[in-house]
Amino acid sequence: MASSNTRQLLITRYDATRALSKTLAQPLSAEDQCVQSMPDASPTKWHLAHTSWFFETVVLTTHNVIAYRPFDERFAFLFNSYYESLGPRHPRSERGLLTRPTSATVLEYRAHVDTAMRRLIEEANEDTWAAVAPLIVLGLNHEQQHQELLLTDIKHLLSRNPLQPAYAGGITSHRSSMRQDTPPATQWIDCAGGRVDVGHDQRGFAFDNETPRHAVLLQPHQLANRLVTCGEYLEFIADGGYKRPEFWLSDGWAMSNAQQWQAPLYWQSENGKDWRVFTLNGVKTIDASEPVCHISFYEAAAYAAWARARLPTEFEWEAAAANVSGAERAFDTRSPHPRSTGIEKNANFGFAQLYGETWQWTRSSYDPYPGFKPHTGAIAEYNGKFMVGQIVLRGGSCATPDGHARSTYRNFFPPSARWQFSGIRLARDL
Amino acid sequence: MASSNTRQLLITRYDATRALSKTLAQPLSAEDQCVQSMPDASPTKWHLAHTSWFFETVVLTTHNVIAYRPFDERFAFLFNSYYESLGPRHPRSERGLLTRPTSATVLEYRAHVDTAMRRLIEEANEDTWAAVAPLIVLGLNHEQQHQELLLTDIKHLLSRNPLQPAYAGGITSHRSSMRQDTPPATQWIDCAGGRVDVGHDQRGFAFDNETPRHAVLLQPHQLANRLVTCGEYLEFIADGGYKRPEFWLSDGWAMSNAQQWQAPLYWQSENGKDWRVFTLNGVKTIDASEPVCHISFYEAAAYAAWARARLPTEFEWEAAAANVSGAERAFDTRSPHPRSTGIEKNANFGFAQLYGETWQWTRSSYDPYPGFKPHTGAIAEYNGKFMVGQIVLRGGSCATPDGHARSTYRNFFPPSARWQFSGIRLARDL
Amino acid sequence: MASSNTRQLLITRYDATRALSKTLAQPLSAEDQCVQSMPDASPTKWHLAHTSWFFETVVLTTHNVIAYRPFDERFAFLFNSYYESLGPRHPRSERGLLTRPTSATVLEYRAHVDTAMRRLIEEANEDTWAAVAPLIVLGLNHEQQHQELLLTDIKHLLSRNPLQPAYAGGITSHRSSMRQDTPPATQWIDCAGGRVDVGHDQRGFAFDNETPRHAVLLQPHQLANRLVTCGEYLEFIADGGYKRPEFWLSDGWAMSNAQQWQAPLYWQSENGKDWRVFTLNGVKTIDASEPVCHISFYEAAAYAAWARARLPTEFEWEAAAANVSGAERAFDTRSPHPRSTGIEKNANFGFAQLYGETWQWTRSSYDPYPGFKPHTGAIAEYNGKFMVGQIVLRGGSCATPDGHARSTYRNFFPPSARWQFSGIRLARDL
Amino acid sequence: MASSNTRQLLITRYDATRALSKTLAQPLSAEDQCVQSMPDASPTKWHLAHTSWFFETVVLTTHNVIAYRPFDERFAFLFNSYYESLGPRHPRSERGLLTRPTSATVLEYRAHVDTAMRRLIEEANEDTWAAVAPLIVLGLNHEQQHQELLLTDIKHLLSRNPLQPAYAGGITSHRSSMRQDTPPATQWIDCAGGRVDVGHDQRGFAFDNETPRHAVLLQPHQLANRLVTCGEYLEFIADGGYKRPEFWLSDGWAMSNAQQWQAPLYWQSENGKDWRVFTLNGVKTIDASEPVCHISFYEAAAYAAWARARLPTEFEWEAAAANVSGAERAFDTRSPHPRSTGIEKNANFGFAQLYGETWQWTRSSYDPYPGFKPHTGAIAEYNGKFMVGQIVLRGGSCATPDGHARSTYRNFFPPSARWQFSGIRLARDL
Repeated sequence: MASSNTRQLLITRYDATRALSKTLAQPLSAEDQCVQSMPDASPTKWHLAHTSWFFETVVLTTHNVIAYRPFDERFAFLFNSYYESLGPRHPRSERGLLTRPTSATVLEYRAHVDTAMRRLIEEANEDTWAAVAPLIVLGLNHEQQHQELLLTDIKHLLSRNPLQPAYAGGITSHRSSMRQDTPPATQWIDCAGGRVDVGHDQRGFAFDNETPRHAVLLQPHQLANRLVTCGEYLEFIADGGYKRPEFWLSDGWAMSNAQQWQAPLYWQSENGKDWRVFTLNGVKTIDASEPVCHISFYEAAAYAAWARARLPTEFEWEAAAANVSGAERAFDTRSPHPRSTGIEKNANFGFAQLYGETWQWTRSSYDPYPGFKPHTGAIAEYNGKFMVGQIVLRGGSCATPDGHARSTYRNFFPPSARWQFSGIRLARDL
Repeated sequence: MASSNTRQLLITRYDATRALSKTLAQPLSAEDQCVQSMPDASPTKWHLAHTSWFFETVVLTTHNVIAYRPFDERFAFLFNSYYESLGPRHPRSERGLLTRPTSATVLEYRAHVDTAMRRLIEEANEDTWAAVAPLIVLGLNHEQQHQELLLTDIKHLLSRNPLQPAYAGGITSHRSSMRQDTPPATQWIDCAGGRVDVGHDQRGFAFDNETPRHAVLLQPHQLANRLVTCGEYLEFIADGGYKRPEFWLSDGWAMSNAQQWQAPLYWQSENGKDWRVFTLNGVKTIDASEPVCHISFYEAAAYAAWARARLPTEFEWEAAAANVSGAERAFDTRSPHPRSTGIEKNANFGFAQLYGETWQWTRSSYDPYPGFKPHTGAIAEYNGKFMVGQIVLRGGSCATPDGHARSTYRNFFPPSARWQFSGIRLARDL
Repeated sequence: MASSNTRQLLITRYDATRALSKTLAQPLSAEDQCVQSMPDASPTKWHLAHTSWFFETVVLTTHNVIAYRPFDERFAFLFNSYYESLGPRHPRSERGLLTRPTSATVLEYRAHVDTAMRRLIEEANEDTWAAVAPLIVLGLNHEQQHQELLLTDIKHLLSRNPLQPAYAGGITSHRSSMRQDTPPATQWIDCAGGRVDVGHDQRGFAFDNETPRHAVLLQPHQLANRLVTCGEYLEFIADGGYKRPEFWLSDGWAMSNAQQWQAPLYWQSENGKDWRVFTLNGVKTIDASEPVCHISFYEAAAYAAWARARLPTEFEWEAAAANVSGAERAFDTRSPHPRSTGIEKNANFGFAQLYGETWQWTRSSYDPYPGFKPHTGAIAEYNGKFMVGQIVLRGGSCATPDGHARSTYRNFFPPSARWQFSGIRLARDL
Repeated sequence: MASSNTRQLLITRYDATRALSKTLAQPLSAEDQCVQSMPDASPTKWHLAHTSWFFETVVLTTHNVIAYRPFDERFAFLFNSYYESLGPRHPRSERGLLTRPTSATVLEYRAHVDTAMRRLIEEANEDTWAAVAPLIVLGLNHEQQHQELLLTDIKHLLSRNPLQPAYAGGITSHRSSMRQDTPPATQWIDCAGGRVDVGHDQRGFAFDNETPRHAVLLQPHQLANRLVTCGEYLEFIADGGYKRPEFWLSDGWAMSNAQQWQAPLYWQSENGKDWRVFTLNGVKTIDASEPVCHISFYEAAAYAAWARARLPTEFEWEAAAANVSGAERAFDTRSPHPRSTGIEKNANFGFAQLYGETWQWTRSSYDPYPGFKPHTGAIAEYNGKFMVGQIVLRGGSCATPDGHARSTYRNFFPPSARWQFSGIRLARDL
């Protein structure tokens, strides 16, 4: 029997997660929240509505014994992201055309869903509780994913405005929170390899793509104890990194040339030397000590080749991260905004900057684990159907909500994606 | 010497024209005003800003003896539409990314420009007056053009929303204002042809593309006294009009197939029979007696071929329109919104529906008149540089502001354009 | 009654025209004849087959009383160019995929059609003769059009080969036949304007688009007595012609930038100064005295604006050409290859270089003449359905077969087309 | 010291491999050999030239102590496929524009290279021999890869011709060589999993991407003893396989819809039921007992999902194949054309149809092996730079030259590729 305490804990968590989405949207005008800057990105308003649609569709209309009335029947079409089994949906590339419903109506929609969700959590009988509790936790993790996307997407939109507006002047964000002093030289941590268990043990929440836990064999190797910095990346640029095909994968070289890449996304320069960077706080000079961010897998791999190293496999990363005691509890939970302390607890081990700076491209394609079984029902489409053409990123970023990431977490994006908070940790063979 | 009366009349006209733009934007939310639904269309907010930019750039910063300070120096880049001589500009296809400046700021910008303009009109010395008065009148005509575009563009945006929202429920618009009774059969008006003078005589305002006035020779022909109705167009559809290449220009057939045209833009049907139409007042059933609207030149020409007729040349149209006594004064000037009485004054002549229903595609490409000279200075780019690849439309539409159109007016769009209020008047050889 | 002499004359003409197509293909390998270098161009082999298909379809299978058996039933699909009324057809952009039928088979196809055509011309009874004789003449004019296209298309193909092969070393072609000495300064010929008759009087062959003959009014103007030379065009380039938007139509400026035009098609330079040109005889240095060739309408119009002149209208051109006594007979008919003497007969009038150098872009869109009626039957599609989005060119080129062009001839291409032998004659207002 | 016997063996092998390329081109006309049907495919003539360029560039001009003079200096530009380190090259998508050099010249080029190669093999001193012998073997394996591509590419070209010509009537090809009787039901072979060694041990030739040999852990699983047949695939189609998104990866569903896939490439039907298939021998009815071929990874994965199974990983496949004794020697080496006996030797084990029918899509992305080191020098670009966005195929096909494939061989193509001889072997978890 789900105790009232258990229920109350879930309501608290539900409220906190839902509130953060609204908080993140707060600095934005109705116009900011409506526009879509590219097909890969979604409007803020759409994120706010879609995360509510998820609860409405996957939980309330499917499992609620208390008669739930949808806020607006048409939203099932408008705010379905990609679930084929849930019927036709509005095209992704046209999300920015939805000037209606307005932001105000979307907030009403959220409140309508929240009221029903709270009542459900409080009143569900045992059978319903057993069915919906895992879905609610999934929905909250889903909403956290969209909180990060909300930030990456609004950053992209604002960056396309010649006025280069800041998302919010006051917040302590990625770019400004980082220490300004020179980072220490990279330490190479020896990893003996051998048989290790990877994947989630399913004690606590995990996405289906992290399972089943299974053993893999690793070769002996070394991992960098910290991320590649902007200063180091500037050396790569200065050494002709973007002009020397020998460092690049073939697809990466083609794309870099086609799109005339010369530096990470959001870096700006009029002479190819004095680089500035657009951030959520506006345009700033480059901080050489910060981890380089907003690079594609292609750039990460080219940098690694230039540095006579390579990217770690996802399992090399995971095995090392699993050794960092308490790493996942290192986030400062008092922060209203997502951020980490930047240095994880186990200083002795020295494997730092795991979760709070940038996602870290691995040298692993996003393939299913042996024995992988997707969720059943509509949420079967959550992860499995994207397992082709994508690269795994591990860790977490300054935009990842507190408590969302973990050592087994598999983030994934196409190798050309640059608008995520993505960076580089190096590895090399022993 | 420009009398204070002359100045006052211009201020009155300036204020009325500027006010109408704001009135047209009034029913729209900030979100509605910000989004761009296709590269050909611009956001409402952009129209409001660009028309102010025009006065600021062409009049205030060029000719003002009273020191004018631009509202924001960066707007010269953001709100230049296509004037190469005025420096670099924001790409047309990205106008919808400008969530900043906000709608509120754009209204402040308008007020800032208006204050300066009123003061200029009141205080300009004679030399300045001589220089700026024609530019101000041009600017007001320019603003009227954008008032129509504002309506065509917002109609397109709202139509792309699955919720199919109305622009405004209360207004008397095109679709709702038309009589519901059966229109009389088309009357064919004989036109003897011969030598006629066309083009504007430059008494009063005209755009440069209407000049110089010159003589042309017309062949004997007939013109329909009214526009083709939706009911007649439905017969074309029912007779396989969209499936029979023999009626179509080659480019039109290719485009119609590529875009799977089956009816005018904004017509909707689930079975190809029971057509409804999206209007600024929302979705309605087709009124068979209304002029068909939102068709491309390709469709107009195909319809004419099917009807064993043709489209008139622009000069056939103009010669007939010049004969309609007082036609240009037939608009009901009390209306706060653009509309006409639908039937022009000279009922004896019977050449009706010239200006207040739909623009009328002609069988004339948009070429320069013999001896055509563009304006000088920045406004040289106003019309001349578009004289290729476009078709002339004559008349005016339900969205054309009162007093804007005239018999010599040359509107022009590419032959594939459908989002304008464009329809068909037939002609045939005698 | 068609006399046997009349029939024999037609056979002679038929044989000569058909033979020229084969002669033009002679220098080309089977590979050269098969490949399509862009969707606008067709393979040589396709031209050879399509022109035979025209006789087979329009004449032999429609009108032949002598039982005609098609060479291969499937060719009706393969070699139909654009006749919707003649059923489905192979896509234009895939003509280069037809490695079968081979060149050898296509020559057999030609022979098969020729045999039947000769027999038809000899043996047709009076009714058949009346029906087919005009179609045969049309077919021969059609074949001449494809002879010019064969040359423009193979030139384009060979130009795309890094080896820059010559079409044929020995022939006297455009680029090599021109005198090398300095051309005289342009003379401006006064044209009084007024009422002139234009269009073909239908004595002798004309395409339907040249009819009906009708009167137009011209304004007083001047025409250049010769074409713009490469030397003059080099001055335009040197004066920043391709970098100064004030000379360009808006669409032209956009296309010139998108495609990075810096000079006419086929001009090559490594430093932007020392220009060479790819010709049918291989790569040569620019001959400053030659007419500039392979420019788009956009470039022609920009050059004219730079030169403080304009392009002539098609009727200004035609009126002047009609005054050149005997111009159309000035071609050297002994030549096996198309060429003209370069200077027309009426030296007193001085309106030179009409037909044998380059087609001349006019400032007239390709609209139908008043009272225009297309042919009936399948050939209704010959010209009329292309009357939108194209610009009229007048004159003829070094690649136009002898006797094909005339003063009323209306050639037409889109304003962006550069691979035709197209150049510039200037006009200006008086 | 390389004995003369060793040298003679290499010459024999060199001659045989080189001769097969010519043999494969023999049934094709010069036109067939010249045209490129899509950017992914290359003309036959280009394959013949490029494989010679490889020997010329990688062996003769780099390592030859006997002065070698290139056949034509310009071929280094024309026939470089993708080696950035070897300078600029002709764009891949324009290979079909190379009507020159002719097929005859390309054969002369081959002979020129062959003469030099034979002399090199005979006369190289010990140092040179040590340097070039591995490169020559690589060049022969490279040529074998292009022999298969030559067949897949010409098949694609011929299939695009409405005449549907056969490559050659007489040869015993894939489609015709297969037995017509009903295949036995699939047997599921149990594989215990555990630690297995994969990758090539570098005794004998292997590509760099097959190395280093290393251990991996496999889960217990089953593998189908034979390939999925056309008959089985027809059931998938009949069960709505192409219309049910639940079976598809997201990218696959999008592509299948965009390209309107309804069956494997080369299958044809007018009613969606009576399927025929275009083969190198022309169009035939479907043989239900043959392995299904010419499907993308997306289709293979969708079929597997429909069949409640999955695709094997590349290591599951390799481990099973390594158990098939003598499998790699099962090919009939007397055949002048590539084919296999279809049933491998170790009938007891029953893991059949490994190498001679179709390549088999695996569920493994093409990532580098741990410790992977590319070749050095120009051939560093051979494999490594393509290790992103591709899927591994294992086995070999009816078009794979005898002796080319092996159990460690890693073929790779993008998941959308269909023009290769690619099919399906199923796996499932135990």
